[in-house]
Amino acid sequence: MADQVHLTLEAAEALANGCLAANGCDADNARAITDVMIKAERDGCTSHGLFRLPGYVSALRSGRVDGRADPKVERIAPAVIRVDGRGGMAPLALERGRAPAVELARETGIAALSLVGIFHMAALWPEVEAIAEEGLAALAVTSSRELVAPAGGRAALFGTNPMAFAWPRPGAAPVVFDQAVSVMARGEVMIAARDGHDLPEGVALDADGHPTTDAKAAVDGVLLPFGGYKGSSIGMMIELLAAGLLGENFAFETSAEFADDGGPGRGGELIVVMDPARFGDAEGWAAHAEAFFEKMTAQEGVRLPGGRRLANRRRIPADGFTIPGSLHAEILELNGGG
Amino acid sequence: MADQVHLTLEAAEALANGCLAANGCDADNARAITDVMIKAERDGCTSHGLFRLPGYVSALRSGRVDGRADPKVERIAPAVIRVDGRGGMAPLALERGRAPAVELARETGIAALSLVGIFHMAALWPEVEAIAEEGLAALAVTSSRELVAPAGGRAALFGTNPMAFAWPRPGAAPVVFDQAVSVMARGEVMIAARDGHDLPEGVALDADGHPTTDAKAAVDGVLLPFGGYKGSSIGMMIELLAAGLLGENFAFETSAEFADDGGPGRGGELIVVMDPARFGDAEGWAAHAEAFFEKMTAQEGVRLPGGRRLANRRRIPADGFTIPGSLHAEILELNGGG
Repeated sequence: MADQVHLTLEAAEALANGCLAANGCDADNARAITDVMIKAERDGCTSHGLFRLPGYVSALRSGRVDGRADPKVERIAPAVIRVDGRGGMAPLALERGRAPAVELARETGIAALSLVGIFHMAALWPEVEAIAEEGLAALAVTSSRELVAPAGGRAALFGTNPMAFAWPRPGAAPVVFDQAVSVMARGEVMIAARDGHDLPEGVALDADGHPTTDAKAAVDGVLLPFGGYKGSSIGMMIELLAAGLLGENFAFETSAEFADDGGPGRGGELIVVMDPARFGDAEGWAAHAEAFFEKMTAQEGVRLPGGRRLANRRRIPADGFTIPGSLHAEILELNGGG
Repeated sequence: MADQVHLTLEAAEALANGCLAANGCDADNARAITDVMIKAERDGCTSHGLFRLPGYVSALRSGRVDGRADPKVERIAPAVIRVDGRGGMAPLALERGRAPAVELARETGIAALSLVGIFHMAALWPEVEAIAEEGLAALAVTSSRELVAPAGGRAALFGTNPMAFAWPRPGAAPVVFDQAVSVMARGEVMIAARDGHDLPEGVALDADGHPTTDAKAAVDGVLLPFGGYKGSSIGMMIELLAAGLLGENFAFETSAEFADDGGPGRGGELIVVMDPARFGDAEGWAAHAEAFFEKMTAQEGVRLPGGRRLANRRRIPADGFTIPGSLHAEILELNGGG
């Protein structure tokens, strides 16, 4: 078995699509799930690329997640679109909800996209980036399962609860960030555990609630919020928005029904979509924000968030990328079975 | 001069109201500004209490801020209320916008309250708390002037950019947090400088861009964002929402027009108001969130944000509070002049 296997994005797409189809996904779901993994590989986000495929397959095989779910879109209030994912993976529900939410925000100025009944473990940034490519700002939050301790505590209660934000730049790629409420994303910790790397201090507690730099112990333990009680407050807010507001699972509820097969748990996602053209500066907003970005990037040592992803995006479609041989072999095996 | 002067909330209210009226505020503006300072003292938030009064007066005396501004409320999009503060302090504009924004969010599910043409230096939490007392969730962000360096940088670009969030609890005080994007709030650093206390490591750079624990050097220097690049991303997002989206000043624009008299600069504020009853769980949302709060507080060492304020609120209305004699003397002197 080769240590690393080189893939083009096209080959990776065919591999993932085929593997999902072989494991119970219909064409729409397979394509939507594949799309977010391939976008992650294209941007160098290994932790949300093909690395996730075995987890998706496992949750499909166990029947926890419906690979043929047909998400239903509904306008439940004048400025709120809800997509009921009907027990499927998140990507197709997001795809179905995006255009209606963008259209609604253009009409109302601000609109909410509520996603419920979904199983989410994709990166959040492709979702807000796609909205910003339509010229709107978007803020997305989602909960997961109990992985992060509140400030002062030693047991997990919050999900890793990423928050992603995108700002549109007409004629250029949006400015996008996507960050977990944990110091390190769960996916990064999993990669470190797989590769035998240590974690920095202050990232995690072990299963007994003691500080650890052992990535494997952290996977079995508890992650810590970034920025102490301030990050913890944001983690709490995300629970309240993605679960309390939407009527979906809090992380503690997801964990109670969870079978840890490497796949996602059921949870909610809220995306707030705002149209800068409807807030009073329809002509000037884009240039105004560019002046701010120029001030930011004029400082030595300061970069706009997402720059590394955009650099990868210029390189990887031509060069391709590598995955561990063990992962490649696992995918081939999953592809054959079902 | 007494070292500390004891005041009741009623006496403090009369003192502040009179001082603002004597310095160019009409009755509505004086009452609204006083209200937020007294709420801060009531909750033990010294840095947003009477400590701010000399700054307000200074900005009124210089004519930078209009003490008789008559804020104008307008629905500029189906889900967006804009209040043009017309060059006055923020509190009256917020008062005028709150009820229309709450009413609109009840109708549309989610609504935005945009505040422009205001001079803001009050605490943000009273604004979101008042909305949550009406049964809605609220997220507020505002920029200020260049005080915080982006991650990796050594010069100020972001404001202290507080984010406040409130979640309604029928029959109980809302859960509320209000946190600056800097490790420490500017007001806390100013209090430390006044009282001769050192700052912790990692809070600030001096005017030359070097780390410092000297609070006076920090006041002349640059604050650092909490949580490194993650807090910095949130600072950037708040600039984009409070300035880019609303068509108001970025912190760097506020600084360019700023006279540092201790008073506020002109800036924007965005409040996103969400009605949990309109998101699909009209019957269950409140009890659902309570189950989450119970899980949080069941952990040893974990408290809900805002608990210290609520404890002060049970004590201070009866006991009163103290301010430094020097501040009391200054207020009396400002009260006499005009």
